[in-house]
Amino acid sequence: MRVTSYDRNGTSGVAVQRDSDWADLGPVDLVEVLNGAHADKVASAPAIDLATVTAAPPLARPGKIICVGLNYSDHTDESPYEQPDYPTLFPRFSTSLIADGAPIIRPLVSQDLDYEGELVAIIGKSARHVSKERALDHVAGYSIFNDGSLRDYQFKSPQWTVGKNFDDTGAFGPIAVSADELPAGAKGLRLQTRLNGKVVQDANTDDMIYSVADLISIISEAITLEPGDIIVTGTPAGIGMARDPKLYMKPGDVVEVEIEGIGILKNPIVDEKKAAAAAA
Amino acid sequence: MRVTSYDRNGTSGVAVQRDSDWADLGPVDLVEVLNGAHADKVASAPAIDLATVTAAPPLARPGKIICVGLNYSDHTDESPYEQPDYPTLFPRFSTSLIADGAPIIRPLVSQDLDYEGELVAIIGKSARHVSKERALDHVAGYSIFNDGSLRDYQFKSPQWTVGKNFDDTGAFGPIAVSADELPAGAKGLRLQTRLNGKVVQDANTDDMIYSVADLISIISEAITLEPGDIIVTGTPAGIGMARDPKLYMKPGDVVEVEIEGIGILKNPIVDEKKAAAAAA
Repeated sequence: MRVTSYDRNGTSGVAVQRDSDWADLGPVDLVEVLNGAHADKVASAPAIDLATVTAAPPLARPGKIICVGLNYSDHTDESPYEQPDYPTLFPRFSTSLIADGAPIIRPLVSQDLDYEGELVAIIGKSARHVSKERALDHVAGYSIFNDGSLRDYQFKSPQWTVGKNFDDTGAFGPIAVSADELPAGAKGLRLQTRLNGKVVQDANTDDMIYSVADLISIISEAITLEPGDIIVTGTPAGIGMARDPKLYMKPGDVVEVEIEGIGILKNPIVDEKKAAAAAA
Repeated sequence: MRVTSYDRNGTSGVAVQRDSDWADLGPVDLVEVLNGAHADKVASAPAIDLATVTAAPPLARPGKIICVGLNYSDHTDESPYEQPDYPTLFPRFSTSLIADGAPIIRPLVSQDLDYEGELVAIIGKSARHVSKERALDHVAGYSIFNDGSLRDYQFKSPQWTVGKNFDDTGAFGPIAVSADELPAGAKGLRLQTRLNGKVVQDANTDDMIYSVADLISIISEAITLEPGDIIVTGTPAGIGMARDPKLYMKPGDVVEVEIEGIGILKNPIVDEKKAAAAAA
């Protein structure tokens, strides 16, 4: 099942892909849809033309957004860090999320705006103390993330939180694919990031150090994962900060993240408006 | 105004202190109460005996829980870090929160359970690009936090997230005090942590490197703060990890955090049950 979220005149809804169009399920819970709750309504639901509505992140306010750093060894090699023998987890807050097509905002205070294409796992069932073998039972589906990062702010202190949480820097969507339509754990999928059409990251989800099953099992040793939480599983090599010269995103650029079997997440880059800042 | 949250048979509510008892406002928004929204109802509301209900965290699911590390220089001195010239921010997730009186759980996988007494600022009004001079206009009130930390997990990777987010380790409450009843920015308040009655942290909120106003102004340069977000402002020296021998919390212990003008947050320590883990 392929699912997307939309906003229409301030009302949000969920649509499911059919053979030749999209079925409008209205304001239902996307995770429940991925879990199969509304499958019987898809055939008879009215069609919706996605071109007439505004894309929304699959989940506008996930309970938790747990991001994974240093989860591809080629990316760790290009970072200032040694590879730790435990997942490196950091947060995003919902206030940083944007939908497919919405602009990623380069803020007034920094020009070091970098891309990071990533696979998202959407939790469908509560998980605590889950074994690696049972971990994937707790995944409802998968999606795409661009973990837009302000590199100077990321490294102003020992914790990356601020550089990873500027408003309008975390692009998420547009499609969530139910787990049954992808290989177990979304393994073996090509992940590619393109900046203005040029490939800047090109990897395979098989290259993750900690697989989706590993992450759920390890995180759930400490933390209860709940339906609607998401795990943003980390980025491969090729980030702009590690290039010489550095390749940061700037107004007018268009960035795309594509994951095989899921789709394409595409966002333009726009500068933060000075007027908005002054008015606040 | 002094406000608390409670649970009664699965229903949550908010109570406000009167001269000689507590007024039960029922299921209203605690932040709106702190902002003054229900002030006219307090005199005529029915009384509630807090001994007959279960304490709840002032906010069970804050939009964001932004914690500040390295915000007292004596604590930075006892840590493995140099003092950065920018706030060190890390997250908590709501799944880690517990109320006053509830047990802090020492997990199966770690015995390195440490205390951290801290002042909480509760955001009352949305904030983006707010000057330091206007920052305190965005605070609804203040409360108390014990940022229970699993030190081995905190340092398994470069990011502290897991060690700061074990279930049932973040004690919050019981009282939220509206900002007008405390000195501006909750400055000049004595903060003390006691383990089994012995003082282990003893400081003053004046010693914070980044004041509440500083934190709101700096964070809002990047991130929209929303009503119901909380900032957990950091801990002073005296943590158990920095002692010789180390002083970790163990089952049977009782830990208290007291902040002048706000109150006392008190929690016993209990081991995680093996049965619960096996059943999951």
